[in-house]
Amino acid sequence: MTKLNSLVLALLLISLNSFGQDRQRIRDYGIEPGILTPGKFNAITDVKGVTVGQKTLIIGDSIRTGVTLVLPHQENIFQNKVPAAVFVGNGFGKMIGTTQVQELGNLETPIALTNTLNSFLVANALVDYTLSIPENKNIRSVNPIVGETNDGWLNDIQGRHVKTTDVLNAIANAKTGLVQEGSVGAGTGTHCLGFKGGIGTSSRIIPKEKGGYTVGVLVQTNFGGILTIDGIPVGEELDNFYMNNQVPYTVDGSCMMVIATDAPLSDRNLKRLAKRSFLAFGRVGSFSSNGSGDYSIAFSTHKDLRIPYNIEDSVRTIPDLNNDELSPLFLAVVEAAEEAIYNSMFMATDVTGQNGRTLKALPVEKTLEIMKRYNKLKSK
Amino acid sequence: MTKLNSLVLALLLISLNSFGQDRQRIRDYGIEPGILTPGKFNAITDVKGVTVGQKTLIIGDSIRTGVTLVLPHQENIFQNKVPAAVFVGNGFGKMIGTTQVQELGNLETPIALTNTLNSFLVANALVDYTLSIPENKNIRSVNPIVGETNDGWLNDIQGRHVKTTDVLNAIANAKTGLVQEGSVGAGTGTHCLGFKGGIGTSSRIIPKEKGGYTVGVLVQTNFGGILTIDGIPVGEELDNFYMNNQVPYTVDGSCMMVIATDAPLSDRNLKRLAKRSFLAFGRVGSFSSNGSGDYSIAFSTHKDLRIPYNIEDSVRTIPDLNNDELSPLFLAVVEAAEEAIYNSMFMATDVTGQNGRTLKALPVEKTLEIMKRYNKLKSK
Amino acid sequence: MTKLNSLVLALLLISLNSFGQDRQRIRDYGIEPGILTPGKFNAITDVKGVTVGQKTLIIGDSIRTGVTLVLPHQENIFQNKVPAAVFVGNGFGKMIGTTQVQELGNLETPIALTNTLNSFLVANALVDYTLSIPENKNIRSVNPIVGETNDGWLNDIQGRHVKTTDVLNAIANAKTGLVQEGSVGAGTGTHCLGFKGGIGTSSRIIPKEKGGYTVGVLVQTNFGGILTIDGIPVGEELDNFYMNNQVPYTVDGSCMMVIATDAPLSDRNLKRLAKRSFLAFGRVGSFSSNGSGDYSIAFSTHKDLRIPYNIEDSVRTIPDLNNDELSPLFLAVVEAAEEAIYNSMFMATDVTGQNGRTLKALPVEKTLEIMKRYNKLKSK
Amino acid sequence: MTKLNSLVLALLLISLNSFGQDRQRIRDYGIEPGILTPGKFNAITDVKGVTVGQKTLIIGDSIRTGVTLVLPHQENIFQNKVPAAVFVGNGFGKMIGTTQVQELGNLETPIALTNTLNSFLVANALVDYTLSIPENKNIRSVNPIVGETNDGWLNDIQGRHVKTTDVLNAIANAKTGLVQEGSVGAGTGTHCLGFKGGIGTSSRIIPKEKGGYTVGVLVQTNFGGILTIDGIPVGEELDNFYMNNQVPYTVDGSCMMVIATDAPLSDRNLKRLAKRSFLAFGRVGSFSSNGSGDYSIAFSTHKDLRIPYNIEDSVRTIPDLNNDELSPLFLAVVEAAEEAIYNSMFMATDVTGQNGRTLKALPVEKTLEIMKRYNKLKSK
Repeated sequence: MTKLNSLVLALLLISLNSFGQDRQRIRDYGIEPGILTPGKFNAITDVKGVTVGQKTLIIGDSIRTGVTLVLPHQENIFQNKVPAAVFVGNGFGKMIGTTQVQELGNLETPIALTNTLNSFLVANALVDYTLSIPENKNIRSVNPIVGETNDGWLNDIQGRHVKTTDVLNAIANAKTGLVQEGSVGAGTGTHCLGFKGGIGTSSRIIPKEKGGYTVGVLVQTNFGGILTIDGIPVGEELDNFYMNNQVPYTVDGSCMMVIATDAPLSDRNLKRLAKRSFLAFGRVGSFSSNGSGDYSIAFSTHKDLRIPYNIEDSVRTIPDLNNDELSPLFLAVVEAAEEAIYNSMFMATDVTGQNGRTLKALPVEKTLEIMKRYNKLKSK
Repeated sequence: MTKLNSLVLALLLISLNSFGQDRQRIRDYGIEPGILTPGKFNAITDVKGVTVGQKTLIIGDSIRTGVTLVLPHQENIFQNKVPAAVFVGNGFGKMIGTTQVQELGNLETPIALTNTLNSFLVANALVDYTLSIPENKNIRSVNPIVGETNDGWLNDIQGRHVKTTDVLNAIANAKTGLVQEGSVGAGTGTHCLGFKGGIGTSSRIIPKEKGGYTVGVLVQTNFGGILTIDGIPVGEELDNFYMNNQVPYTVDGSCMMVIATDAPLSDRNLKRLAKRSFLAFGRVGSFSSNGSGDYSIAFSTHKDLRIPYNIEDSVRTIPDLNNDELSPLFLAVVEAAEEAIYNSMFMATDVTGQNGRTLKALPVEKTLEIMKRYNKLKSK
Repeated sequence: MTKLNSLVLALLLISLNSFGQDRQRIRDYGIEPGILTPGKFNAITDVKGVTVGQKTLIIGDSIRTGVTLVLPHQENIFQNKVPAAVFVGNGFGKMIGTTQVQELGNLETPIALTNTLNSFLVANALVDYTLSIPENKNIRSVNPIVGETNDGWLNDIQGRHVKTTDVLNAIANAKTGLVQEGSVGAGTGTHCLGFKGGIGTSSRIIPKEKGGYTVGVLVQTNFGGILTIDGIPVGEELDNFYMNNQVPYTVDGSCMMVIATDAPLSDRNLKRLAKRSFLAFGRVGSFSSNGSGDYSIAFSTHKDLRIPYNIEDSVRTIPDLNNDELSPLFLAVVEAAEEAIYNSMFMATDVTGQNGRTLKALPVEKTLEIMKRYNKLKSK
Repeated sequence: MTKLNSLVLALLLISLNSFGQDRQRIRDYGIEPGILTPGKFNAITDVKGVTVGQKTLIIGDSIRTGVTLVLPHQENIFQNKVPAAVFVGNGFGKMIGTTQVQELGNLETPIALTNTLNSFLVANALVDYTLSIPENKNIRSVNPIVGETNDGWLNDIQGRHVKTTDVLNAIANAKTGLVQEGSVGAGTGTHCLGFKGGIGTSSRIIPKEKGGYTVGVLVQTNFGGILTIDGIPVGEELDNFYMNNQVPYTVDGSCMMVIATDAPLSDRNLKRLAKRSFLAFGRVGSFSSNGSGDYSIAFSTHKDLRIPYNIEDSVRTIPDLNNDELSPLFLAVVEAAEEAIYNSMFMATDVTGQNGRTLKALPVEKTLEIMKRYNKLKSK
């Protein structure tokens, strides 16, 4: 991607920002975590076929929530399942659909992210969605996948305001290319490492000689710790971190990570990939607190790994990337997950919600000063 | 329990039968699986404090479903969690709430059983229930537990007819003592081993010198295989079994098992207990087919193991039954689960549902003849 | 197999019996558990390429132990790994090599069974064996697989009498075809369900229209419970069972199960297959007591699933049996495991070991009488 | 600890260094990862009762290996088991004893670390050790715990040079207080992140108001990645990292982490603690490569949690730290594991082994310059 394209993208993303607050992605500020190269959009949508749809609910004083959908491909997912696996970092959460993914090694609906108490209605909405497709009209079983984090500090979470239509709209509007980040969709009301969290995404491309595969990650951030940005102790410098008795600090919360790749991975290797995203958690300063529901779900979009609902032959012939080839993908997922978390914070904007509570976004200028002081800001 | 009491109970149970078809529990016919003694009601409710509530939905031609609730005690469960664990026999199912139970080792809502596609609405109803208790009014997170099996052959499963009020009613009506079995509640539309399945329950009491603990099991049966009753190949004798090409046979389906005990078990040992219930599956002739979602959830009602939501002290002092003492409990859970499955079939009645389809109950007389031929019927 | 062949085999097996006590396999007595048909040898060796080698150590008064080896194929296993998975029924055991099998989904040495305290020396012997193959001379890592049960009642287990040469001999002598059963190899000193246990094996063939695959199981039995033979309560009839206070009874011990199939199963589906063998445990009257180390390891011998140590291409193209096709294999493994356990007992002979202790073999005549009384003996 | 004490300790540690190369621990250079305070020795031995014993084998040109033992307390461990749990980060390793720890939730031998191919003989030596204690003379089962990493580049690993006497010596010499680090014991021949690795240790103390507990970690480092020291990209600055095509780089290897705490944690919560140590891996620049066998084992030394082999009462009364209190411990283990890894590198010395190969230690001066350039070096 040329520098010009990069600039155009950055401008587009700024214009996408829903609050009119000027925010850019971390890479646009010259901070480039890791050694691998991002894909064109530096987003989960760099994995061909993957789309993201979101619905943001900002209504009245107290509704600050939403839903974010990730679709592995553009066909009927139920009829063309994709290999998938879940890693549970810390299971204090309500993620729906995990056991069937583990048992059968596949995914048959879009992946929805939302708020904790809304999970069940959103799962039910995914059932509605799946049944609404004419080809699926006679099915009796669907395994909806819903992840969640708790936005109940800013949002009237007991109200469960995300409705079926919101889910269907988000699916209908799902797009490839740029992904809205920050205080949008399922990240509208979340916090991260002492600041406003939200939706973030990033991707990495493995060098050609290592396979040339793409790994994309989308995160819904809502957790605490001691913020480290690309190694720099920003949380401490800003006096906003866990165990600092000077400030109120919520260490609990959760993090959902959705991981896509075009590499031909078995569900076992997808699980190993998902597990590595947990390492990114360490890099940004989380320690997966007791109250944090941290889950990663990974899937492969490789065409020859699709599992048709109605299979003619009892045996499929499928590609399988050797175990020995996994290491570059492991590095890629750590880097992409780390950068996706930063993006969720850099793109997030201040949000005021119920009871007049406000979550402030990461102060970008101060952060950049800190990064500069530690010689971690590339001059542009 | 005297013989007279036993007779009275049997009569009561017959009168509870919702279809007017005369059915008795397996033990009433003189078949007594295992060597341990059942509790007073030979039901999960023999574990003190446990209650069961059900709502059966038989409406028009096509609605044949319901919901079954198990409550571990009669206080606010969210505020007084109980230790719990889940074993996944075969994860092709939608059980909700498993990861949090595994992570935290406890249970904070009643356990609901229902049909597959209704799981999410029933989970949402458990959230409603929990939030409706004044003491819980400020909570932002609840982990509802829902198990399910698929009744979509008899029931209009896509309609998701179990509503919030059905769940609330079932909770409100939950009782100790006798438990309705057969084609009721979440078992209204299910099949088992070639015949009508449903809800079944049983219990065992460990000899005093081994601790005197009670283990109770409640099952929702909906699976296939080759029916064996107390060791006798009834399925083969009745020419109704998997791989018999002469008859149509549905091997898929699922089995949910809920296990209660008053023994002071850690969540690790509860998981081991839950795992043993899977062995009962082998005894009745199941092989946990690919399409069977087989889950067991076990909890302890021991008072000193309750986990208050608001704990004053950071360290609780708790009783813990030694690993070495577990074997009698393991035997008990296998026996109770096995007999619960038989009860679900013996108490089930013929049910006709959508598209005029009928599931016939186990033909008791023929079955008893077979048992007699194999010398397995105790004369009464 | 014609009846004549069957007779010849039976006679051969009798002559193989190491103690001169006349014993036959259960099927030779007219007891035929299950509905599927065994393979030619009714042994794990019916899975093409699989061989079994054993070394029995009966020395002096106190050494009653040995080693049993299962080889998945006849090439260099390290250089041609096979897909594999482990299911842990009850982890109170010392099985070696499990985590690497789970992580990588494959097996790279023969599977050795021996006594508990000897496991580590036997694992070291498998390293010796692997390094001794010229093609492997430069390798630095080997993952030996060793299962064990505790024969320390009859055997001087602290002596760890199984030596490297015993392992190498057993591998060198490994054969296809008939497998020695009963008080031999790793089963020389073990007990089972109140009687002498040992090595047993059995197999099942899936009907052609379901794939025609073979599943073979080899067990090392050393556990307690309440013996049920093909559904009949033989343990109770013989007054020899757990919780019967009239007799001393050891409920603890362990069971190792080795499962081979030629079906093209992924490691995920091999794990599911292994898990089903646990159901056979229920059928024979075990409840997997606290002290029982119960493990199952399953592998596929399918040629196109071999994983070469030195792979040229980064992606292999492999066959994968669909999830939907697993059920017949699940039934097969339950049946074969059940019958293998019976064979381990029927073929076992009385063994006297350290401190003059004796484990009596199952009294076959009395057992057959019981089976007859329950109408479970087919006349021959 | 006063500054003077700190200096004395540093000097002592320098004098302990086995190669005469001047090395100090990372904290002695003014780099202080994390926000919590280390214990007196900044070592796993800060957890009261824990001792460490090591035997370093540097013999001739090709033997560069050893064994490191961690003892949870100074009594007979088999007779006084401690609660324990294992987390498998990446199971491409041979760790011995994991399934029994998981099943029973406890530990009954010292934890030994050694080289990959020597694991089995070292496990056998732990059996010898356990049997040699008079009180244990009649036992028939022991579950030795052995972790390993692969030192086969420098060391003649096929020779399996660690003998029973080495293990017994290391146990006999186990001490509290200072722990030898770097190229010693099981770390004699290992590499880490492009440089010489080895044994490292560190500890953290939770603030009094959070419980005042101690968490100590000891690591055996032998893995690759992209070295980050306290957030600074030292690997890149030194041009020595994975995916840098200019240098040969071994990304595979393994990491063993042993975690001790005096907090009264159940085995479930010990597993959660162990899982968090994986996050430290992310912080130092590892991505747990395909070939890395990464395991963490955690135990609690709390006196009231001991599990006697011969228990009189069937129910123990034990303390249990509430789930809600875990977060500070989670932070502590991440910090201690991270610093332990740095210590393994800072204290390691150049080692030349078989075939004249040399692993260079981290160049401390250059590293400090880099840290300074990034403003991460506290002036002393």
